Order: sequence, then C-alpha cells, then structure tokens
Amino acid sequence: MTRIAPQDLRAKIMSAEDAAAMIHSGDTVGMSGFTGSGYPKAVPMALAARIEAEHAAGRPFRVRVWTGASTGPELDGALAKADGIEFRLPYNSDPIAREKINRGEMDYFDMHLSQVAPMAWQGFLGPLNTAVVEVTGIRPDGMLIPSSSVGNNKTWLDRAEKVIIEVNRWQNPALEGMHDIYYGTRLPPDRVPIPLTRPDDRIGEPCLRCDPDKIVAIVETDAPDRNLPFSPPDQTARAIAGHLLEFFGHEVARGRLPASLLPIQSGVGNIANAVLTGLVDSPFEGMTAFTEVIQDGMLDLLDSGKLRMASATSFSLSPEAAARVNADMARYRDRMILRPQEISNHPD
Amino acid sequence: MTRIAPQDLRAKIMSAEDAAAMIHSGDTVGMSGFTGSGYPKAVPMALAARIEAEHAAGRPFRVRVWTGASTGPELDGALAKADGIEFRLPYNSDPIAREKINRGEMDYFDMHLSQVAPMAWQGFLGPLNTAVVEVTGIRPDGMLIPSSSVGNNKTWLDRAEKVIIEVNRWQNPALEGMHDIYYGTRLPPDRVPIPLTRPDDRIGEPCLRCDPDKIVAIVETDAPDRNLPFSPPDQTARAIAGHLLEFFGHEVARGRLPASLLPIQSGVGNIANAVLTGLVDSPFEGMTAFTEVIQDGMLDLLDSGKLRMASATSFSLSPEAAARVNADMARYRDRMILRPQEISNHPD
Repeated sequence: MTRIAPQDLRAKIMSAEDAAAMIHSGDTVGMSGFTGSGYPKAVPMALAARIEAEHAAGRPFRVRVWTGASTGPELDGALAKADGIEFRLPYNSDPIAREKINRGEMDYFDMHLSQVAPMAWQGFLGPLNTAVVEVTGIRPDGMLIPSSSVGNNKTWLDRAEKVIIEVNRWQNPALEGMHDIYYGTRLPPDRVPIPLTRPDDRIGEPCLRCDPDKIVAIVETDAPDRNLPFSPPDQTARAIAGHLLEFFGHEVARGRLPASLLPIQSGVGNIANAVLTGLVDSPFEGMTAFTEVIQDGMLDLLDSGKLRMASATSFSLSPEAAARVNADMARYRDRMILRPQEISNHPD
Repeated sequence: MTRIAPQDLRAKIMSAEDAAAMIHSGDTVGMSGFTGSGYPKAVPMALAARIEAEHAAGRPFRVRVWTGASTGPELDGALAKADGIEFRLPYNSDPIAREKINRGEMDYFDMHLSQVAPMAWQGFLGPLNTAVVEVTGIRPDGMLIPSSSVGNNKTWLDRAEKVIIEVNRWQNPALEGMHDIYYGTRLPPDRVPIPLTRPDDRIGEPCLRCDPDKIVAIVETDAPDRNLPFSPPDQTARAIAGHLLEFFGHEVARGRLPASLLPIQSGVGNIANAVLTGLVDSPFEGMTAFTEVIQDGMLDLLDSGKLRMASATSFSLSPEAAARVNADMARYRDRMILRPQEISNHPD
C-alpha cells in the first residue's frame, strides 16, 4: 500500500536514477539525516553512480552537501567515494570523507549544529538548489510525516528551489505524531524566545510543511537506517557513571535536586550511554531528558519506566534497539519527541 | 531634604561607623556596584578602618565580599589595603586587590557576571549575611530607588539576612523611573525564558523591593561615583572602528541589515568606545543598544540622536560625562534603561 496519499503527487513517483538526474554539478543539496537515521538512501547512491560515470567520461561533477549531522554510508560514503562532494557541512564522520577533508581535497565547515538552520535561513550559506529528504509518508493534506530524524529538514524544505522526497516504507507509520516541528522561529530583528520550558512541552506540529509545487520527484524505498553501533560500556565508563550517580544521590539527599532530578541533558557517545544505562538501577523516578539523539542507554531507561519522556532530534540506536523501537513505535510515540536540531541542540 | 520617605525607616539612620559595626569577621557581605558606579562609599571605608584597628590590636578580621563587578577605591581599594578581604567575586580591577589575588593571599572567583545572581539564589555560594547597597532614595511605599548601577542588588537584597542602605544624595533623583528590575526569573526546574526581545522593552519594575524588617541601618552620603576614565580613541582603535563601520554600511547596502542596524551589543573598553564614537558620524539612524555599561561613546551616540535607546546595567562615564548625565537625568531617563546584570549580561 502506498504511503503517498495525495493522488496528484503519485504522478511524481520515479526511480532514484531519474530523480538524481535532476541534480546538476555545482548544485547545493540539502539532505536529511542526523547520525545514521532518516537520511535518504536511494537518491545519493544513484547520484554517486552518475557522478562516477561523468568522471569516467572526463567531465567534472561535484555538489555541495548540507545535512543535519553525520549520515550513513549510502550518503556520505557513496558520494565521498565518487569524489562527488565539493563542500560539506556541518558534521561528518564518514571515514572516506574525513580523509579527503583532512587532505584538503574537500571543503568542510564544522558549524554548531543548532546554527545551521538559522544561518541557512538568513542566507549566509548561499542558495539551496535541491532538498533530498526522507519521510515516513505523505498525508492526504500534503503534510510530510517525518522519519527517524528531523535535523534541518524543515529548513531544507523551506529554502530549496526544488524538493526530492524519499518515502521509506521501512520506517514505522506509527512515527506519525511523535514529532514536534516548531515553525515559530524568526530572523533578526524579530527573534523571539523559544517557548519550550520542559522536555515534554509540545510547541509545534507533528508534520513537515512543503509546497507541493516544489516537489519534483518522489522515490519509494524500503531500507533500514544504518547507525554505527556504540561500544558496550567498559570499566572506565561504568566508573564515571558510578561517580555521577553518587553525586546525584548526594544532591537529592541534601535537597538541592528533586527526586526526579532535573531534566537530563546528556551528550552522545559511549560514556553518555553508560551513564544512562547506570540510571536504570538508580532510585530516581519520573525523569525527563533533553538530548540530541536517543541512544540504546536512553531506550533502556525509557523501558525501565524511570524515564518518563525523552526529547531529541534523532534516533541513534544499535540494530537490535532499532528493531525494538520500530516494532513498538505506537507505544514509544507518547514517550519520545523528535524536534528540529535548532531546538534540540540550542545552547539555551 | 531627606530622601528617606518612610518615617519609621528614618529611625535607622546612623553613622557609617555604627553601621559597619554590625558586620562581623567571617561574614559574607554583598555590596552594590558595577564598574565605578552605584557602589557604597561610606560603610566599606568605615569597615576598613575598623578592620585596621582590629588588626592593630592583634585580632583577625576579614570578610567575604560579593559585588556586581569592579567597584571604586572606597570599597575594593580600602578593604584590600586593610587586608580585610578573605574572598572576592565576581570581577575585580582594584590594583591592591589584584596583587593580593595574584600572590595567593586573597581567594577570588572570576565568575560569569550573569551567573552570580542565579548561583547565589540557588545557594551554591553559601549564605549571605549582609547586603550593603547604595540607592538614590526610599519611596513612601518603602521601595528603593536604584542608583547609577543595578548589578546584583536585587539578589543581595533578597538573600541577605540583614541590609544596610546607603542613600546617596549626589545621585540625581530623576534616576527614578530609568530602571527595569525584573522579578520574573525562576530557579530550576521552573526556569522560564526572559520575555525581553528588544533593548527598549521594559519587563520589570522601576524600583528594588526590600523587606523593611531586614534593614538594620541607613547611612546618608553625598559622594560622586568614581569611574576610571577611559583613554581617548587612538589611531588603532579609530582604524578598527572604521573597518566595522565600512562593514555595516556594506551589509545595509546589500539589504542584509536594516538602516537602523540590529541592536548594537557592544563590549566595554577603549575600542568599543571608539566604535561607538565612530557611529556618531555614520549614516545609521534610530539605533538601539544592549550592553553592560554606558560609556562616553554611547552617551555621545545618544546625544547625537542616532541612538534611540541604550540598555545596560551601569554607567561607566568619565567625570565630565557623568556630570553631563547627572545634570540632565530627567531627559536621559527615557532613553536609557538600567537592568540587573543577570539580564544585561545574559548570553542569550
């Protein structure tokens, strides 16, 4: 069954190759994706194949690539291997791309993740020719149901001259309703505070808006996210987690922290993961979390019932944990909120 | 004519010596003052004399001193000279204090100026025994008319067990109405955004609140603020100002900045002063500014009519400029706003 509800949009369904043919050398392309979640899987591969063919024919072909953060091998890996990326922002972890960047063969701007969207919107980064955004489906009213990450997708869809959508059947349709897409940001001199004071506040809309006239291609896919698995907590990480839990317990005992703690603002990586796993066996209840990605440790904490709500911009789960979430998405939807990274990663 | 309107408070008028006698060795004292403005002038001098007498008698006597930022020679200078400061925060520029700090003879915590009030309020800095705060007057309803700086005065008055007020007749009574004292901040987990989006927004009250039962002494003074004069702009500072003005003009010409510019968020010092002076001869009109102290350059810009409104926490003016402002305060009151430093110096 198709996930593209509007009849008129179905006329734009095509192959990844045909969609990739709409991207030209020198174009700036805004791709979805934040860690290995919610990135387009077919169009970048087709684009990489096209670039390789052009290079083989002696013709130059490189694009400028904006994303949310790191993505998967089908995007950064394939395009970097094809030597197809002229410029890349804001964060990249692909080994081939990294080598090219360090050798000075690929331009790179490692921006603060929360500043990409406002700077793109203000025009400081130049025009955006094409957005390539993975979604879970398109509703009858044309609204796009976001995928397993939000990242900068709102801004790419707003700013791009044309839009290529990948509709990924692999993503659970129960993702609809999990997201909180905030359309209230303003540019200077009209900036306003973000009216978000608790991780469980919802201040936006569940779906992404997109002018249907800008959609030039829709590609259907059925492919899993590919996150790099984190290492299991080692002795050092467990010791760090222990020290932190001891500190929390002390502060609660002294009355300086509530028994639910303050909202946990965790980073990403093996140590953050170990700390979150450690909290499963803690006495703290009714916790909330405000982070950028939901890793395995945070999922364990949600499953334990100790964490009431987690706010992030993306999943970044091991294959086993991703399968667990995908199978039970309708239940997790009320306990997780995925937001644009200008909110999840905002320094406030 | 007295500036202490409430009859019952007049009974607490006493000499600086009697007021200083209420401060004990080991006490933590929160003093007003931000740069050389609005700091108490009589009680710290009397306290320093008392400390010297105690030391001469072989008795230890040192206090812990919290302020807004740097102060004047009557406060930091006198107390440091008497070797009366055990610990000092958050910023100090007194030469004697600086030497003692650098020799390890005085403890010092150089905190971010906007974080002093919330950290004191949360209790992380320990209890506050006494507040010594300069004001312009006390209204019939007991509200305190702030002086030429606000700094952390709101928090010192809230947190201190007892309060000593200096009422300085030298400050122009027309200061009443210039200030914007915001009482809407909350501690975690109840933090809320500061509802200030433009430099000319007023979100608070014109006066400081103080429980009259906490007031143990009122000392009347008539003494000018003593700001360290800034150097006149040199060749380098003028060149920097020229480059910046050229950049602003370019951005306005390209339509990326409005003709009134965005609110100027200027720092402090000789270069910031030179840039502001340079703006007097610029084509920009209707400017606003959000800064920590109003220096001579910003005053020149206000006088030129190009700057519509300046928001800060303190004056930091040369003696000539201070006399100019003091003589014409009723007119300046509508074009300047002095706020608590947790707002003026907030990173947002």
